[in-house]
Amino acid sequence: MITHISPTGSMDLLSQIEVERLKKTASSGDLYQLYRNCTLAVLNSGSHTDSSKELLDKYQNFDVNVLRRERGIKLELIEPPEHAFVDGEIIKGIQEHLCSVLRDIVYVNMHVADSKRYHQVDSVYNTNLVFDILRNARTLVPGLTPNLVVCWGGHSINPVEYQYTREVGNELGLRELNICTGCGPGAMEGPMKGAAIGHAKQRYKNARYIGLTEPSIIAAEPPNPIVNELIIMPDIEKRLEAFVRMAHGIVIFPGGPGTAEELLYILGIMMHPDNAEQPLPIILTGPKGSEDYFNSIDQFISETLGEAARKHYQIIIDDPARVARKMNESMPVVRQFRKAHGDAYSFNWSLKIDPEFQLPFVPNHHAMANLDLHMNQKPEVLAANLRKAFSGIVTGNVKAEGIREIEQHGPFIIDGEPAIMQKMDKLLKDFVKQNRMKLPGGQAYEPCYKIANK
Amino acid sequence: MITHISPTGSMDLLSQIEVERLKKTASSGDLYQLYRNCTLAVLNSGSHTDSSKELLDKYQNFDVNVLRRERGIKLELIEPPEHAFVDGEIIKGIQEHLCSVLRDIVYVNMHVADSKRYHQVDSVYNTNLVFDILRNARTLVPGLTPNLVVCWGGHSINPVEYQYTREVGNELGLRELNICTGCGPGAMEGPMKGAAIGHAKQRYKNARYIGLTEPSIIAAEPPNPIVNELIIMPDIEKRLEAFVRMAHGIVIFPGGPGTAEELLYILGIMMHPDNAEQPLPIILTGPKGSEDYFNSIDQFISETLGEAARKHYQIIIDDPARVARKMNESMPVVRQFRKAHGDAYSFNWSLKIDPEFQLPFVPNHHAMANLDLHMNQKPEVLAANLRKAFSGIVTGNVKAEGIREIEQHGPFIIDGEPAIMQKMDKLLKDFVKQNRMKLPGGQAYEPCYKIANK
Amino acid sequence: MITHISPTGSMDLLSQIEVERLKKTASSGDLYQLYRNCTLAVLNSGSHTDSSKELLDKYQNFDVNVLRRERGIKLELIEPPEHAFVDGEIIKGIQEHLCSVLRDIVYVNMHVADSKRYHQVDSVYNTNLVFDILRNARTLVPGLTPNLVVCWGGHSINPVEYQYTREVGNELGLRELNICTGCGPGAMEGPMKGAAIGHAKQRYKNARYIGLTEPSIIAAEPPNPIVNELIIMPDIEKRLEAFVRMAHGIVIFPGGPGTAEELLYILGIMMHPDNAEQPLPIILTGPKGSEDYFNSIDQFISETLGEAARKHYQIIIDDPARVARKMNESMPVVRQFRKAHGDAYSFNWSLKIDPEFQLPFVPNHHAMANLDLHMNQKPEVLAANLRKAFSGIVTGNVKAEGIREIEQHGPFIIDGEPAIMQKMDKLLKDFVKQNRMKLPGGQAYEPCYKIANK
Amino acid sequence: MITHISPTGSMDLLSQIEVERLKKTASSGDLYQLYRNCTLAVLNSGSHTDSSKELLDKYQNFDVNVLRRERGIKLELIEPPEHAFVDGEIIKGIQEHLCSVLRDIVYVNMHVADSKRYHQVDSVYNTNLVFDILRNARTLVPGLTPNLVVCWGGHSINPVEYQYTREVGNELGLRELNICTGCGPGAMEGPMKGAAIGHAKQRYKNARYIGLTEPSIIAAEPPNPIVNELIIMPDIEKRLEAFVRMAHGIVIFPGGPGTAEELLYILGIMMHPDNAEQPLPIILTGPKGSEDYFNSIDQFISETLGEAARKHYQIIIDDPARVARKMNESMPVVRQFRKAHGDAYSFNWSLKIDPEFQLPFVPNHHAMANLDLHMNQKPEVLAANLRKAFSGIVTGNVKAEGIREIEQHGPFIIDGEPAIMQKMDKLLKDFVKQNRMKLPGGQAYEPCYKIANK
Repeated sequence: MITHISPTGSMDLLSQIEVERLKKTASSGDLYQLYRNCTLAVLNSGSHTDSSKELLDKYQNFDVNVLRRERGIKLELIEPPEHAFVDGEIIKGIQEHLCSVLRDIVYVNMHVADSKRYHQVDSVYNTNLVFDILRNARTLVPGLTPNLVVCWGGHSINPVEYQYTREVGNELGLRELNICTGCGPGAMEGPMKGAAIGHAKQRYKNARYIGLTEPSIIAAEPPNPIVNELIIMPDIEKRLEAFVRMAHGIVIFPGGPGTAEELLYILGIMMHPDNAEQPLPIILTGPKGSEDYFNSIDQFISETLGEAARKHYQIIIDDPARVARKMNESMPVVRQFRKAHGDAYSFNWSLKIDPEFQLPFVPNHHAMANLDLHMNQKPEVLAANLRKAFSGIVTGNVKAEGIREIEQHGPFIIDGEPAIMQKMDKLLKDFVKQNRMKLPGGQAYEPCYKIANK
Repeated sequence: MITHISPTGSMDLLSQIEVERLKKTASSGDLYQLYRNCTLAVLNSGSHTDSSKELLDKYQNFDVNVLRRERGIKLELIEPPEHAFVDGEIIKGIQEHLCSVLRDIVYVNMHVADSKRYHQVDSVYNTNLVFDILRNARTLVPGLTPNLVVCWGGHSINPVEYQYTREVGNELGLRELNICTGCGPGAMEGPMKGAAIGHAKQRYKNARYIGLTEPSIIAAEPPNPIVNELIIMPDIEKRLEAFVRMAHGIVIFPGGPGTAEELLYILGIMMHPDNAEQPLPIILTGPKGSEDYFNSIDQFISETLGEAARKHYQIIIDDPARVARKMNESMPVVRQFRKAHGDAYSFNWSLKIDPEFQLPFVPNHHAMANLDLHMNQKPEVLAANLRKAFSGIVTGNVKAEGIREIEQHGPFIIDGEPAIMQKMDKLLKDFVKQNRMKLPGGQAYEPCYKIANK
Repeated sequence: MITHISPTGSMDLLSQIEVERLKKTASSGDLYQLYRNCTLAVLNSGSHTDSSKELLDKYQNFDVNVLRRERGIKLELIEPPEHAFVDGEIIKGIQEHLCSVLRDIVYVNMHVADSKRYHQVDSVYNTNLVFDILRNARTLVPGLTPNLVVCWGGHSINPVEYQYTREVGNELGLRELNICTGCGPGAMEGPMKGAAIGHAKQRYKNARYIGLTEPSIIAAEPPNPIVNELIIMPDIEKRLEAFVRMAHGIVIFPGGPGTAEELLYILGIMMHPDNAEQPLPIILTGPKGSEDYFNSIDQFISETLGEAARKHYQIIIDDPARVARKMNESMPVVRQFRKAHGDAYSFNWSLKIDPEFQLPFVPNHHAMANLDLHMNQKPEVLAANLRKAFSGIVTGNVKAEGIREIEQHGPFIIDGEPAIMQKMDKLLKDFVKQNRMKLPGGQAYEPCYKIANK
Repeated sequence: MITHISPTGSMDLLSQIEVERLKKTASSGDLYQLYRNCTLAVLNSGSHTDSSKELLDKYQNFDVNVLRRERGIKLELIEPPEHAFVDGEIIKGIQEHLCSVLRDIVYVNMHVADSKRYHQVDSVYNTNLVFDILRNARTLVPGLTPNLVVCWGGHSINPVEYQYTREVGNELGLRELNICTGCGPGAMEGPMKGAAIGHAKQRYKNARYIGLTEPSIIAAEPPNPIVNELIIMPDIEKRLEAFVRMAHGIVIFPGGPGTAEELLYILGIMMHPDNAEQPLPIILTGPKGSEDYFNSIDQFISETLGEAARKHYQIIIDDPARVARKMNESMPVVRQFRKAHGDAYSFNWSLKIDPEFQLPFVPNHHAMANLDLHMNQKPEVLAANLRKAFSGIVTGNVKAEGIREIEQHGPFIIDGEPAIMQKMDKLLKDFVKQNRMKLPGGQAYEPCYKIANK
């Protein structure tokens, strides 16, 4: 099947040069490959595999060509996944996502990459780059008062938890709060669907369902079509930075190691002395029956990062309205702080993020084995390193290159101070026990890591 | 608690005279009572009693005053139900419904009722009146091509059936079809919620969730806040006429006697020889496990109205996409027919509806006992009479005045040709068996009718 | 030429009954005639005759038929004036006006006229009727803060005066004030065109150019297509009442006896003791060279209504920015007054208007001869009577029935207290001298009145 | 006076780095100077000097600072020209222009200039750069069908000509055509004001009044506030390329040497053999009384570029409706051509523009003296060179750096084949005779050039 799609949105006009460089035959064939894979991923929305390898294998004949036409560009899709279509017509949400992929890949790889200053690695440039990408995607809307709640949590949670995320979404929506997630299924989808109903009840016209993804994760966690603003950040660190600079509040639902990574990331930042005054409500929440997950994590944090880390978040069990009310009540506080500091509502410039949270961490066997996991460092630095450890586990679990790596060289070895290793081992075993590490297929979880000295 | 609400919408300006006549102290105090009760009903959205008596009893202190103010009118609500509010703010969908109540009550009782020609009873005037009310509510939008699916079905269906109605709604929404229901819970809510998600995926901006209700039913089946166009028709017959003149297709989910009433109503009309050419897709559908309901009804129709009646509908079990596809495929047929006949897309003027379907039927003991339920009449007339029988049962089950009537004088007696009575008895017993007559509270169903000679 | 037009706007759906009653062949053929003539008038926009008789004579073959179609109604125009079209397509502004004519004629003649209470003559009912018509036309927009400036003045002013009205319009537009006029050419058009430019500079999106007309004047002063809200009031008195109840301020440009009528009308109202507190800025303004007109009027008012009358208005010569600034500065005062009195921003309910300003005055020879023009009455009553005298002169000058009357019976005789008669004679002679009574054709003015005893 | 302005539009968010680089104290102080001067120019809208030097001298104390704030950025204006404000509030059109200046200066000088490929000089890169700038300004709207008429002509024409440009604008507006000009006064303003009225009559919602300017001309020809899309191209050649790639038709009103430059530019392009099939209607038009101007030019073109050049344009005298009708009739032809060639409606990629039309021409004494003005070259190349000669004359007449140059070194010497020189001399003398070279102040024109050998 060959279909022609008109993208709708901001990137519907490409220059001759841009079109040339996206061609399969262009000198930089890598770019085509990246573009093609991300395009395939968004077309795969709603499919329920969470292995990107599986997806790529299944649609080997898929191809995409960008054509310039009189009314803008057209995308020619060859052998696309069928479920992106309803009675032969592409779902408009997916059509928009195709456009977002094009926009971000062109911007990052043609405009930013051409810039003289791109390869600079200092923190200021990284932050400005995150800003540039979000601004180019028109995600940073000036004038809007703070109302964006970032929701984190697992992509494969159980039905009770999923329904709970919808209810929290409904309550957030009833308070006219907007949602930003990692834009896959599960806890990334539920709050959006719930909020869509809540927003509809409130006739809320400016509903935003923002999905932040990145090329290595998009195939495993394709955005659901509810997402009405999709941004493909160039890597996991810029994605995380985008989350926290855009967030006016963060809700964390149950999840697996990915969720733990996210929590460690934000805690590491919030614990930085420069951020002591930053108001950013963080709520861990789940339905009755999910307490165990939060208890495990809470204990791990208390024992590794110390009691001080716990004051940055709050755990609420089984009370969607309370979660939403707390978030809503924090918004004026956030607004007041930004105003007092002349900082943008849409982008938290004043949040201090150290380079170790910004520089891309490539989780190969060597890097994983050399993580500095000892207590004799500042807790925020330990948080950064623990974050990397969990990032590696996510990579080994669901990302194409990670799975390949593990297939070839066996599990990652994670080493460090025994006390920490022990706690980490316990937490990961708890996750396995709580079915947080299992693939939906049902097969038993095969760990992609090994705690050293065990 | 006293709250002031600004209505949003078309009726936010009232003249001095109109405000006067809505006052509790106005000479026509009945009007205030009607207005107050309907207002209470829409404020009660989301509550799950289906007895209007219960509702009215519970909020005896509730009061509403219409005040003229500089920016339009304000509604003063005294002791309103709490669940209409989120953190003290009224839900905007409910706020709109308050305005719809005001608009329709003022229009019908002040403008139409003042008109010299109002009391005329011929069919033409009735139809023009239905048109006038819908037009005044701006429900008849010229220029829109046919895409309105009327969904009928029970307000208290089981969770599997409810989820099924959402899935059908999602598939209808994905095809950019709009929804019109009787606007209570259950099968009247599910398709709207599902469609809201489908519409969001399609970025569909003109989503319509039309609720048609009437004063005697609104308290038992309060509109859910998703409804973005609420119309309060003056009586059940005008409500039914509004449904069928606006519908471009009808989906019927499982329900109880109310649903049977609706099906008999539309069949009686479609069987009229003048309507032989009318294209109007009618689909009866439910999930696996709900076949029994449709089998009972299908058999009853076949045995009373004859085989010819069955060609007007189609039964589809457990296939939401197919239901939606069928509806969607019929839309061009409907459009073509209207165009060829110069008839409005928004209002089916050419559908022949006989006066027996239009004149208000007041189901008291006398009227119920005197229904003409014999085979020796045209099937469409029999359908009309059977429709009245089921209408009476609905009244006895859930409407305030019906319940009072039954409490005072015992069950309605229904009489007629034994063959018909037998089939009717069987159908009603099937309903009881299928839990179609039970109140949500869980108590066993106490019949409000007796088949004569039994 | 036969053309089919789709009306755009609120009246694009008519019921069967309404369509029937608008037919040429309907029993009430008068209604067709009224509808046809008003339709012809709006089609004649931009033509520069100011005699309605001429217009009606010229397009004797013109016909209009209302047809019901699938997407709403269509208007069939037979032999319409060519200048309503650009390259064969009707100008959209005129298309909207066609719809306004239909809307108001249907509303007033079918809905209001059918009402039992229509023929009541007391003041409350008149005011409510004006409100009903304006609300039905959706002219009363709740929520808008006061910003509507009514501009009165002549339809055939000289080029310098015309340019001046544009400049005042531009300055009003720059301050985001909206314009309401009688919607013909000259001083009724200039402020709108000027404001359109001022609004464009300010990117003002809610620009309103409201035209209030009535059947007997519309043919002589057809609305220019800039008018984006046209309302056809049933008679001159309801039109005047609509002006003053909607106005948040009034600017009066040079004109002839019609402008004098309007000034006398508003002065008579403002001088009523009940209106002593009403804030309503009234500014008489013109370019350098137009002082004479205002001096003549100012003197006449001072000498007939007394010095007290002069405090209600202010004369500003040749300073558009100052006129606009004054108006703008009054708006918060008006807002504050309405708020304090709980009166609507969009409709000044609290303004006292006595019945003599409301009841239709039919200016025939008998009525004109019997006006009570003596000093021994309250000044506001004298203002009312003087207003009628000028109304008669306008009728004799430009209205079809007036011209016919004069052709048959000679000029109107105006009688009264000699002192008043003398001043009136002087004022009218001044008007002749200032070329305020001349038709554009250029022929000398032939008076349609005679002051008695002269 | 110090004022704070919120820009409205796309550039309301700047990154930290961008804000730094715009500071007066930034290492690249030139950028601040450029930004400040362009900002001053747009604030000067409506002033009627056409000397940029005068403007810059008058507002020496003017300063602008870009501040980051919670709702986006703020511009701090110190001692801005008063006429940009109405009662102390900035005119919104001007506010938008401030934002356009910021957007284009940041984009060209920070994003494009940082790019590795910016200094490439081949034609493809130039064209892509023009595209990038226009796209970044969101001027290239995909999906719109061809309807953009570029209007060229003098900034200081006489009142009859000015009124004529308004009438042409009105007729274009009535046909729902949009306008693009160089955005100063005179023939650049009249068509926009006229079209604003025409668009208002047609209720045309997508009205575009596009102004294309560049830093060296903006101060002398500040954009009028009607312009709702302002783009500051980096130099005159990119501005001209933007005009012709965006145009779907070109109307040329009377003007002076600048208008001659524009006509020679487009003729040189249209005469290129590769453009033989390009449909692009070009109409030279003026009121009765302006024939001389067009006759002079027509003769000059015929005698220098040859008879073949004349088939690319058409002269229409005193018939606004015909001009607009011709333009309108060409639009489907343009559309068809673009469609057939797969070329964008919004940007004419397929138009061949040779590098001599693209590379910046810096008109100093040396460059002017060395222009190749002989007949023995292809006519399109001669057109390119003649274009440069007239460009130099414009620079010497109105641009700050040109005036300075002439003050220091005397008039430019223009040399070339005597036959051409003679014709050029005659044309320029005709311009003087027709008052096309005079400054509005009224002083006699002092030529900034000398034809060699005279």
